[in-house]
Amino acid sequence: MDKRKLILVSNDDGIDAKGLESLIRIARMFGDVYVVAPEKGQSGMSHSISLTSPLRARSVAKNGTLTKFAVPGTPVDCVKLAINQLLPRRPDLMLSGINHGSNSAVSVIYSGTMGAAIEASLYGIPAVGFSVMDHSPNADFTLVEEFGPKLVKEVLENGLPEQVSLNVNFPVIKKEDFKGYKVCKQTTGVWKEDFEKRTDPYGGNYYWLTGSFLNAEPENEDSDEWALANNFASIVPIKIDFTEYKTINTIKNWNL
Amino acid sequence: MDKRKLILVSNDDGIDAKGLESLIRIARMFGDVYVVAPEKGQSGMSHSISLTSPLRARSVAKNGTLTKFAVPGTPVDCVKLAINQLLPRRPDLMLSGINHGSNSAVSVIYSGTMGAAIEASLYGIPAVGFSVMDHSPNADFTLVEEFGPKLVKEVLENGLPEQVSLNVNFPVIKKEDFKGYKVCKQTTGVWKEDFEKRTDPYGGNYYWLTGSFLNAEPENEDSDEWALANNFASIVPIKIDFTEYKTINTIKNWNL
Repeated sequence: MDKRKLILVSNDDGIDAKGLESLIRIARMFGDVYVVAPEKGQSGMSHSISLTSPLRARSVAKNGTLTKFAVPGTPVDCVKLAINQLLPRRPDLMLSGINHGSNSAVSVIYSGTMGAAIEASLYGIPAVGFSVMDHSPNADFTLVEEFGPKLVKEVLENGLPEQVSLNVNFPVIKKEDFKGYKVCKQTTGVWKEDFEKRTDPYGGNYYWLTGSFLNAEPENEDSDEWALANNFASIVPIKIDFTEYKTINTIKNWNL
Repeated sequence: MDKRKLILVSNDDGIDAKGLESLIRIARMFGDVYVVAPEKGQSGMSHSISLTSPLRARSVAKNGTLTKFAVPGTPVDCVKLAINQLLPRRPDLMLSGINHGSNSAVSVIYSGTMGAAIEASLYGIPAVGFSVMDHSPNADFTLVEEFGPKLVKEVLENGLPEQVSLNVNFPVIKKEDFKGYKVCKQTTGVWKEDFEKRTDPYGGNYYWLTGSFLNAEPENEDSDEWALANNFASIVPIKIDFTEYKTINTIKNWNL
């Protein structure tokens, strides 16, 4: 008989987020679950780690098949501490999210949700980050709860290549309009920041980060933005080799 | 006559770091310099951005060809605010560092120094992150000050491909042992974390993140770790498409 699977769950919206509860329900269909999530919201924390302050782990729940810790740190801190200290053994799978808000296209590099999934993949653990395109605290996760499990099942059965994770984004649409999964590339583009400049009551200026995504390939049907705009959930396989190989030879010809 | 170049300089060790001063000296050889750097050290902040608090910019210096602002935010915050609000025009070049400590191999994904350089590259600005393999506050930057300018000159003359930046690391060795630049790939490997578990005076446990890099390809002469171990400075061209293209077809065959 197979031993029960051990699944690590984390997120970047914090231990109390609604999306985390949805993901725990999905994870528990497949095995014992350890949740190690940030105490507070960590959106936009990317792959950051705590180097100047130590970490703690607050035990939140423990009931046989579900164990929960809250860590006052980043999503990547949570994954490192979980794998190296808190879990009884190496997990079979890591799930991150469900993020309140999209992590498609270039947003993947700012995302704490994907930071956590990528970190697990670095340890050789198959990892999937789930997000929905609605950043409200009360976002609707029913589509992920219905269609997420069959993706998790495939990952557990087939595994993923070494150091590869999946960035999965769901549109916010009615179930009858949903067209299923589409495997994609990360859309090329950039966030065009506008910043909202304000003046405080004492005359000092401050700036709120705002902005909108400028899609450099809106017609590309292989891109995740296209998939989401056309009622698919996007799956982008993610690796962490940043090397731009085709530029290596160019630079070798420079006068250095 | 060419108009003077405008160069944006930032880092992750903060406005008062010794490495920043070295990089400013290099930058001023090529044009007018705007420094927009974090108020405090931001090591390990990766590509994180401030979403829940606004940014401010404190004017530190202004003397015709050198303007300095300190921002209480992340390195990526600094670059966004600089390009969108603080600079008089789009810069011709962005330089990041000089980081106190290595950003070779997989460290690139945790690095605030490279977060800043990658962000500038997303805006289409040629960007170079410099680091030395010594994280002490008083690290020796003379090798970078001597050999950095010819790399900067080549970048200004040749440009870089769209959305590509350079991750440049220098070994800490004597000048007579230095072998020059080597264009490399990011070394594959993972940080093996150990964590140091301690108990506070009140009986609570806390954990310090420690660890060491486990090189998965120590014999690969094309890797940046090999270059650094053999007295070269490594140059890795960096892009921000995380897509693992060769896995796309694998997943298309799953039962989803």
